[in-house]
Amino acid sequence: MDNVNIVPDMEQAYDESIEKIFELLEEKKYFRCRDELLKHNEVEIAEMLVDIRREFDLQRMVVLFRALPKDISVDVFAELSIDDQIDIINIITDPEIKYILDELDFDDMIDVLEELPSNIVDKILDKTPKSERRMINNFLKYKEDSAGALMTPEYINLSKNYTVRQALDHIKDVGLDSETIYTCYVLDRGRKLIGVVSLKALVISDDNKLVSEIMHDDPVVAHVDDDQEEVSDLFTRYGYLAIPVVDNEFRLVGIVTVDDILDVIEEETTEDIERMGGIIDTSDREYLDQSVFQHVKARLPWLFLLMCSYFITGGILARCEDAMSAVIALVIYMPMLMGTGGNSGSQSSTLIIRGMATGEIELRDFIKVMWKEIRVGIIVGICLSALNYFRIVFLDHNPPMVAVTVCVSMILIVIIAKLIGSMLPMVAKRIGIDPALMAGPMMASITDMISLCTYFVMAGLFLHI
Amino acid sequence: MDNVNIVPDMEQAYDESIEKIFELLEEKKYFRCRDELLKHNEVEIAEMLVDIRREFDLQRMVVLFRALPKDISVDVFAELSIDDQIDIINIITDPEIKYILDELDFDDMIDVLEELPSNIVDKILDKTPKSERRMINNFLKYKEDSAGALMTPEYINLSKNYTVRQALDHIKDVGLDSETIYTCYVLDRGRKLIGVVSLKALVISDDNKLVSEIMHDDPVVAHVDDDQEEVSDLFTRYGYLAIPVVDNEFRLVGIVTVDDILDVIEEETTEDIERMGGIIDTSDREYLDQSVFQHVKARLPWLFLLMCSYFITGGILARCEDAMSAVIALVIYMPMLMGTGGNSGSQSSTLIIRGMATGEIELRDFIKVMWKEIRVGIIVGICLSALNYFRIVFLDHNPPMVAVTVCVSMILIVIIAKLIGSMLPMVAKRIGIDPALMAGPMMASITDMISLCTYFVMAGLFLHI
Repeated sequence: MDNVNIVPDMEQAYDESIEKIFELLEEKKYFRCRDELLKHNEVEIAEMLVDIRREFDLQRMVVLFRALPKDISVDVFAELSIDDQIDIINIITDPEIKYILDELDFDDMIDVLEELPSNIVDKILDKTPKSERRMINNFLKYKEDSAGALMTPEYINLSKNYTVRQALDHIKDVGLDSETIYTCYVLDRGRKLIGVVSLKALVISDDNKLVSEIMHDDPVVAHVDDDQEEVSDLFTRYGYLAIPVVDNEFRLVGIVTVDDILDVIEEETTEDIERMGGIIDTSDREYLDQSVFQHVKARLPWLFLLMCSYFITGGILARCEDAMSAVIALVIYMPMLMGTGGNSGSQSSTLIIRGMATGEIELRDFIKVMWKEIRVGIIVGICLSALNYFRIVFLDHNPPMVAVTVCVSMILIVIIAKLIGSMLPMVAKRIGIDPALMAGPMMASITDMISLCTYFVMAGLFLHI
Repeated sequence: MDNVNIVPDMEQAYDESIEKIFELLEEKKYFRCRDELLKHNEVEIAEMLVDIRREFDLQRMVVLFRALPKDISVDVFAELSIDDQIDIINIITDPEIKYILDELDFDDMIDVLEELPSNIVDKILDKTPKSERRMINNFLKYKEDSAGALMTPEYINLSKNYTVRQALDHIKDVGLDSETIYTCYVLDRGRKLIGVVSLKALVISDDNKLVSEIMHDDPVVAHVDDDQEEVSDLFTRYGYLAIPVVDNEFRLVGIVTVDDILDVIEEETTEDIERMGGIIDTSDREYLDQSVFQHVKARLPWLFLLMCSYFITGGILARCEDAMSAVIALVIYMPMLMGTGGNSGSQSSTLIIRGMATGEIELRDFIKVMWKEIRVGIIVGICLSALNYFRIVFLDHNPPMVAVTVCVSMILIVIIAKLIGSMLPMVAKRIGIDPALMAGPMMASITDMISLCTYFVMAGLFLHI
């Protein structure tokens, strides 16, 4: 880094601090640890606590958490993962729990309550006022991963008959408790959503204008039962800071803000990528926090299933034992054909799965996709075959008819793999299976079977065995 | 969907509209087409124009684009991909271009100018005022995919000596031209960033407070040369709506807003997933918009390279021809061992690549990761072997020693594959290669080689061939 650069390197500062904290913890100097932590913002403190838990144990993490000033500890708590939050709650005292839950944003509090055992939740709810208790109970009913579970009821609600000045005064009064004040919502008497107005519009408009004059009256909304993935698609499409959530009667029940969506996007992407890599049924815990058995549980079933599919592949091979004994050279090119088939199929399925996830490729594009893949497959297959012919005849000194068998098989295998690789994710989506499951590992297993069949049919054709 | 549900189904409305538009276009009823388009918001109109281009051609898309009211056409233009934007610019007249560029947000305008041929850019810059021209030229110099290329100079700049009322009045005056007014920036005389203040803080504070009293004076910043991926990590970590971008002297040069980051995240995720699926050097165009040759170009090199790696695998097999001729049954279990090795490796590499991308797994976790993978590999390997022993001995009626060979190979292969699958992405990152390249296809090729070697070594050991 340049000498003239006076921008602090945040990552380096973090690493230096965490090392110092580890040393201080070894020496049990908790107060100096706390002072070192307090040099950072709440996001970094939360990350440091997680590091401390991994390096030492939960106890020491909680000791330091409790040593933080109260107001900071709440902000740090909000940044922790739900698992860490629950583990902390299980250790600290009831008054500490009450303080944290009172100070948390409503949606963060709901997330914590959802994971707590019901007897603890009941104990907490006993002490909350009746109106709030009813609202909390309503929110606890929303399905996991739905818009309802993501949203917060802490939004600003304006009347369409307010003047801009009245609206701004109202915001000043109630703004502190609202998750966002940058988008405000206009409701009718039945709490139906009739418009949204941005704080920007309010701030730059004349004081005497009416809210109804500057509000946008056909807002994009999410339905309370929508999946969180649909909600995050709306944010990506429209680039809004918040989206209102309505019930079946178009009554506003809450809002989802963009900062929560960033976490949803990361979570959904991780799930997609892991499924594409053959890891099913992952918990929300991070890699390092999962036990060996949780890892086994997430990986074994799919590996097992795919391995069983190779029993069929083995069966095909068993039936071709004679052909293999006759021309043992055929076996030498088998892994290459299977591997290239699998890779070709993976490429296509990856593109289609991602295209469908971002909304670019729709089911109605099926024919267009197939036609494109066929042409790509033909060109790629021919290019790869050309090199192989040369290698088999001139380098390996095998008979030209073996080369022809391998090359024709290669072209067919690449085309078929690309067709299946693009078709399967679309078929899966059509029948309601997650297309991400039709990626690499699945492709490899299916194309291995197809490659072998194709190969031995071609061998029969060209080598008469 | 419920009958009582009065929430409009946006997707269905879209599909109905686009079909109607296609029909109207067939009949060349452009005015009725335009009216149909105008029933939607700018995001949907942009998506419809793209659909029209795919179904018909660029000409018809541009005809409809020009038929839109001027103010709407700019908003629609901003939503189009850069390729579509450039194609439109190449067709419309100079006054139309000038109008659009003047009305676009600064960062969107820079994106368009970057892609235009320099003679056209010069022609446009000739007509802009000198001060703006200098700024545009500065922005055009930032590296693609850097914070500098993402940011906009249209932010609100406050003095720390302003009162809250003065600050709000200032925002009212200049807010319309600013990309966001929700975060405002406090600079000293040398344009160094000394603090940020949110509009929320301004709106809910007393009119007479000073900006310096409510500003946050240790803001998270990005450096102008930071890669866009680092910038988007900051947004995911902190959940901010905007992040200031500073130069080497900590002078504020622009801001990046969260709506632009949503696009960056989608772009970077697509790049990662495609690389993990063996597609390298993708253009920014979407799947359906890429020609067959662009697809071939993105897929052939990696397939080619991996295929060549199978020349080694073939070489190993060629040296084991005798063993295979002796026990042809060995060949039957070969695909299963290779496939399962590849899948095991893919699982591990997927988890590690994603863990590093989200920042959970660091290079210093290397030993922890290895130790976890070894244990997972042992358990998974033993489980898979147990089933295989049963199958080989009791179903396939092969000699127990063949089963032992396969089962011991299986355990070793799974462990080695998991180790390599987790190690390679970390090593790649360490030496500056994108870890995403070490995913499925790469894993399959490497583990195929290792599986074969292991298998035939075990065969020599247990079957004495």
